[in-house]
Amino acid sequence: MKKPTRKIINDPVHGFITINQPLIFKIIEHPYFQRLRRIKQMAMASLVYPGAVHTRLHHALGAYHLMCIAVSELKDKKIAITAEEELAVKCAILLHDIGHGPFSHALEHMLVRGVHHEDLSLQIMKALNEEFKGALDLTIAIFTDKYHKPFLHQLISGQLDMDRMDYLSRDSFFTGVSEGVIGYGRILKMLSVHDDQLVVEEKGIHSVEKFLIARRQMYWQVYLHKTVIAAEKMMVKILQRARYLYDSGDEQIILHSPLDYFFLEFTGEMDRASLDKFCQLDDGDIQSAIKKWSHHSDPVISRLSSNILNRKLFKCQLQGHPFDPEFILEKKEKARKKYHLTEDQVDYFVFTGDAVNTTYQIGDENILLMAKDGSVQEISLVENAIIQGALSMPVKKFYICFPKK
Amino acid sequence: MKKPTRKIINDPVHGFITINQPLIFKIIEHPYFQRLRRIKQMAMASLVYPGAVHTRLHHALGAYHLMCIAVSELKDKKIAITAEEELAVKCAILLHDIGHGPFSHALEHMLVRGVHHEDLSLQIMKALNEEFKGALDLTIAIFTDKYHKPFLHQLISGQLDMDRMDYLSRDSFFTGVSEGVIGYGRILKMLSVHDDQLVVEEKGIHSVEKFLIARRQMYWQVYLHKTVIAAEKMMVKILQRARYLYDSGDEQIILHSPLDYFFLEFTGEMDRASLDKFCQLDDGDIQSAIKKWSHHSDPVISRLSSNILNRKLFKCQLQGHPFDPEFILEKKEKARKKYHLTEDQVDYFVFTGDAVNTTYQIGDENILLMAKDGSVQEISLVENAIIQGALSMPVKKFYICFPKK
Amino acid sequence: MKKPTRKIINDPVHGFITINQPLIFKIIEHPYFQRLRRIKQMAMASLVYPGAVHTRLHHALGAYHLMCIAVSELKDKKIAITAEEELAVKCAILLHDIGHGPFSHALEHMLVRGVHHEDLSLQIMKALNEEFKGALDLTIAIFTDKYHKPFLHQLISGQLDMDRMDYLSRDSFFTGVSEGVIGYGRILKMLSVHDDQLVVEEKGIHSVEKFLIARRQMYWQVYLHKTVIAAEKMMVKILQRARYLYDSGDEQIILHSPLDYFFLEFTGEMDRASLDKFCQLDDGDIQSAIKKWSHHSDPVISRLSSNILNRKLFKCQLQGHPFDPEFILEKKEKARKKYHLTEDQVDYFVFTGDAVNTTYQIGDENILLMAKDGSVQEISLVENAIIQGALSMPVKKFYICFPKK
Amino acid sequence: MKKPTRKIINDPVHGFITINQPLIFKIIEHPYFQRLRRIKQMAMASLVYPGAVHTRLHHALGAYHLMCIAVSELKDKKIAITAEEELAVKCAILLHDIGHGPFSHALEHMLVRGVHHEDLSLQIMKALNEEFKGALDLTIAIFTDKYHKPFLHQLISGQLDMDRMDYLSRDSFFTGVSEGVIGYGRILKMLSVHDDQLVVEEKGIHSVEKFLIARRQMYWQVYLHKTVIAAEKMMVKILQRARYLYDSGDEQIILHSPLDYFFLEFTGEMDRASLDKFCQLDDGDIQSAIKKWSHHSDPVISRLSSNILNRKLFKCQLQGHPFDPEFILEKKEKARKKYHLTEDQVDYFVFTGDAVNTTYQIGDENILLMAKDGSVQEISLVENAIIQGALSMPVKKFYICFPKK
Repeated sequence: MKKPTRKIINDPVHGFITINQPLIFKIIEHPYFQRLRRIKQMAMASLVYPGAVHTRLHHALGAYHLMCIAVSELKDKKIAITAEEELAVKCAILLHDIGHGPFSHALEHMLVRGVHHEDLSLQIMKALNEEFKGALDLTIAIFTDKYHKPFLHQLISGQLDMDRMDYLSRDSFFTGVSEGVIGYGRILKMLSVHDDQLVVEEKGIHSVEKFLIARRQMYWQVYLHKTVIAAEKMMVKILQRARYLYDSGDEQIILHSPLDYFFLEFTGEMDRASLDKFCQLDDGDIQSAIKKWSHHSDPVISRLSSNILNRKLFKCQLQGHPFDPEFILEKKEKARKKYHLTEDQVDYFVFTGDAVNTTYQIGDENILLMAKDGSVQEISLVENAIIQGALSMPVKKFYICFPKK
Repeated sequence: MKKPTRKIINDPVHGFITINQPLIFKIIEHPYFQRLRRIKQMAMASLVYPGAVHTRLHHALGAYHLMCIAVSELKDKKIAITAEEELAVKCAILLHDIGHGPFSHALEHMLVRGVHHEDLSLQIMKALNEEFKGALDLTIAIFTDKYHKPFLHQLISGQLDMDRMDYLSRDSFFTGVSEGVIGYGRILKMLSVHDDQLVVEEKGIHSVEKFLIARRQMYWQVYLHKTVIAAEKMMVKILQRARYLYDSGDEQIILHSPLDYFFLEFTGEMDRASLDKFCQLDDGDIQSAIKKWSHHSDPVISRLSSNILNRKLFKCQLQGHPFDPEFILEKKEKARKKYHLTEDQVDYFVFTGDAVNTTYQIGDENILLMAKDGSVQEISLVENAIIQGALSMPVKKFYICFPKK
Repeated sequence: MKKPTRKIINDPVHGFITINQPLIFKIIEHPYFQRLRRIKQMAMASLVYPGAVHTRLHHALGAYHLMCIAVSELKDKKIAITAEEELAVKCAILLHDIGHGPFSHALEHMLVRGVHHEDLSLQIMKALNEEFKGALDLTIAIFTDKYHKPFLHQLISGQLDMDRMDYLSRDSFFTGVSEGVIGYGRILKMLSVHDDQLVVEEKGIHSVEKFLIARRQMYWQVYLHKTVIAAEKMMVKILQRARYLYDSGDEQIILHSPLDYFFLEFTGEMDRASLDKFCQLDDGDIQSAIKKWSHHSDPVISRLSSNILNRKLFKCQLQGHPFDPEFILEKKEKARKKYHLTEDQVDYFVFTGDAVNTTYQIGDENILLMAKDGSVQEISLVENAIIQGALSMPVKKFYICFPKK
Repeated sequence: MKKPTRKIINDPVHGFITINQPLIFKIIEHPYFQRLRRIKQMAMASLVYPGAVHTRLHHALGAYHLMCIAVSELKDKKIAITAEEELAVKCAILLHDIGHGPFSHALEHMLVRGVHHEDLSLQIMKALNEEFKGALDLTIAIFTDKYHKPFLHQLISGQLDMDRMDYLSRDSFFTGVSEGVIGYGRILKMLSVHDDQLVVEEKGIHSVEKFLIARRQMYWQVYLHKTVIAAEKMMVKILQRARYLYDSGDEQIILHSPLDYFFLEFTGEMDRASLDKFCQLDDGDIQSAIKKWSHHSDPVISRLSSNILNRKLFKCQLQGHPFDPEFILEKKEKARKKYHLTEDQVDYFVFTGDAVNTTYQIGDENILLMAKDGSVQEISLVENAIIQGALSMPVKKFYICFPKK
């Protein structure tokens, strides 16, 4: 089939996305990529923010679009980027999240035990590279930071990468949380390269500060919203219970869907066959499972599933220090009595944990500001910078979830 | 459980939606309403517009929000609306689309044969009314236009109802199609009531014109986009083939999901049991079915299903007059040979039909403009109005779909 | 002084405008261009739409920005445009409105009698060209449509030029009139060139229709809003009266500002000296004059001036046919009595006229749609096009203005 | 004249502003209020941000609109606010900035020496109150914080008042600086009253943090932008020089405009006559003066004026500590030689100063957060709040301005 040579896609967040290279078309049309249509970017967050149903495919396209702008700006500033590097860095950003499964991050380690989504992304890239006869060699080198121009990798994965730039814009657009809106247009204009490292022109400091603060706000207001935590942790509990039932030979739990494989057969080692299985999974499989399990005879899995299905979510409390064991016990006792649960079962209904977010990790991946005279300084060292002291410390919050009333 | 008395929901389209009445809470929390979370408002349109994944639940909340504004504006203009009427009209708009199933309108008559979604909405309202002990009596009277203040019904269903006002705004927001953006803020400010009929103040004419034109643009650019038509009609063909296989006793076709009921048992008459079954359906069921059927041994259903799954959509051509039978035959012949199909089977791969849209139907439900002196005039009669002649005629387009190359 | 080589300007309408060529910097920094900061784009419209105070300088920069995008898109489609042509067409759009004086169009023929603003633009371009030693030769050739690639001229002045694209976007942004929002992003993506003529890809038809309708709506809702007409015509009457007083040797009328020249010395022929005088004028001169004249002993000019100053605007009625002479007479009689006016004076307080707008002038400058097969068709000939019949006819409206009560 | 009873104004920032009370109409129509049309909200900032030409009238209307929403939300939460209080607080916000003169804050103490704009606002309110026969008694009591419900005053003047809420939104809208966009919608929903003090519901903390950070960003990126400082200080120097020339009896300096009064006659005491004179001033008077003075024979005033007129602005450097006297001397020496200046004159061309901004002043006017249990806590005491330590300290920056090259 003759491929079109140019296509535009309407994106409510960034406007029009232009695709004009055959390799980009091939990636987008591949079933592994199309699968991302069926995986929501923000997992359970739509239970709180009803607009947040956008997909990982949409995010990947958006990040690709920002990469197109970033590369074009850098080239306009006479930064040397070859046509091959340009294509490779675009492919890399398109594929950077290809390894996400349904409802990750919530379920990341629940289904494909012990495998991180970035490893999966790499494995899928390698499989595609084989299929595309090596066309992704440079893409993979950049993605794994083995290429001699680190700024290309930093555009994909770093403090100011196109991934974050897109997901913050996109997530705040679809949730309607204006606190997360970032001035990415200005940051892109201010990007530059110094000693092969990505830097920001000095006068972009306010936009970068805004970006870091916005990310912080999104964490506490959206990603770690207590109702979202409750929903995600309930999902984890459902999968834990399901695994227990699968392991105990229960027949009723079986779904006759690709999910079964990851409970019954997956060994923890990812080969081509398991990769294929993985690439058949999407949110719909989890959703159907939950709908089915809501009728299961096990009272734990059925109650949790029907609660998620009908949005009868647990109450979640967040605080800056661990919960008092007495308080936890009291909640457990209450739940045990109310639902006639055994000791083991109650842990599915009352549970604690913690969530951490750092606005800006000094010493980790730095944001470098470049003055007009070409000198470079780390952002937290700038006079009166907002990113100092408290903001560079991780904020840890402790949560407890339990049934309402 | 103690209900909260006031809640705000973040809507990226309209800002903040306030819920502050117990009956509204009860409706929103009901599983029948929560089900709308799992039904996309625009069915297959996200295959063309990747942002268009918003849900029917979100639309229902948005329309409710616009109703709150409309009622408040009318009351500010001293139009008599009692507290009971206000609550009822809000409930009615919240429930106006409750009868939608998965991928309607595309699949409307495919699953629940012969039942229109508005009838289903009414039946579900009646079921809820029973459960709520008559609290929805007035809601149902208004919804069915049996109440003595027709303007309340017109706010729910009419040329300028809150349903259209919301879906146009919402669909253009999520698709990114700026052609569909409407100035609903101004229209709401201009609404009034004359002789118990909904009217628009004369100087709102340009906003109303813009609204009608925007609707027309959305039809041709989005709802009847040729790739969207192709995808929706392929879905219809999949369900037709499934029905054929169910009817012929095929065992492999069975899904072990709530969908089976509508192929195997549903008689065409909606009773409480079938309503319950219906309210278990969502997009996920169709999606899972398609994923499963993509491995079926029947070459028709498996090819169609895997095409939809991986977005290998048929080509669709649109034109103003019927297609030449020769041309259709030629396409069929080509498909028959390419896929080794029988005469019967080829109709699943090459098919024609038509789509109709009327910008403004004169004589049907009119839009009335009210002058400062209180006189009322139908919009198409206004001097130099844009809504005249050609625009009031239905536009019919004919389509043909067939496999690419 | 070393010029910066790259600068970005923050534009709330289009985002960031990049300037990166020395000639563009020189034009923008020239006092003739900076003067446009002091001339409002929409003259008196801010009396109705308080946000509409944006300047002609801002519009010129915005149109330049759209030109940058348009040229880049065309080059991406392999349309041949040399670096010289690119620079020239950007200079041309930057200067296209340089000849506007204060409160034009309202006052266009009142101050510089008999000279059209486009002639003034050309004359100023020529003066700058001299100063810049011929650097604007090609700019002027394109501006006057004497260059052998007409599409370059059409980008500056035509049915879909960057001037209109910017002013519609900008005016609707600053007025808040959503009816005027156009999808310029999509139109720019759809522009192409065929036989050296600017064309639009066929599938851009809905965006072009939207654009034409938006322009129509802006005319009737904003540019020809009856209160705006009243204000602009009152300004014209003030200048008429001033001229009468200047001509009759009144000393009190003299302003000791650059305006005096155009009442006392200007002969109707534009030479370099009068051009210099003209380029000293801005809105402030008119505003100061009106403030001063509001204390003049002539009751006509003082009343009109103080009315404009304090926004005590005349009432304006608009209708589709001329006003009844009886009605006009009656209004005059009323005004005469109320303000003790002579026969001559009353014409400054009660006056009539007409305003015309055509949505799309068939046969004038056409909009050409290009199909995928390369064939080209005029937009009004397309099946079911919205731009047909009524919309291609000029709409004429008649107005009368008179003092309220 | 019969007043209209309801009017809507189109505001691109907030949508539609509704006016529906006779007293509000009377204030808006008053020449003192209409004068605000001719005073730009952001003074010289449009030299850097070309869109920032919005007026003080527009800001006053916007703040009034936010007040309408705030009052309506509070009443919806059962906070007792009488109809008289509601009207008064709306009048107060409408008039809160009525005392601003042209180019304040830049010129605040230059024209009306020793009188602060808030005192002027109060005096003008009193003058209007006389004219309106006491209708503004309660307005003035609330404005001067002498009313027994302090939250009403806090809505006009406090950490979260409608003034700031509007100017931040409006200024970021018109400059295009996305860093200043605030989620005012959410803050308004979260406002409440506790012990007659304005408080914010606890879960509004992120929106409030965002608001404070946005304000900080606007200060450094816009209000105290170094080019804006340069322009404003050049204006101050022009007025200083003008005063010197007026004082020395120069005849050429005289303008024959209302400005003369404040150089020649104003004694420093504000009586009704000087108030009248003050209310005739607007930006146009300053602009005309500068245009005229650009031709003055005094080399200081003519050079400064023509530089401002043609945007040949001085260079401005900003840093966290005072400038080295050597450095200042060197700059002065350079300027002296270049322009052949005397010792006295050089201070008009090279000058230093400082600018201070505090994000959140602890102990001054506090922002109180109210928990669900009704307890109230100051925002900087909240665990992990962003508003702590560094952010509550004033940031002082030192500037130096001197001619480029």
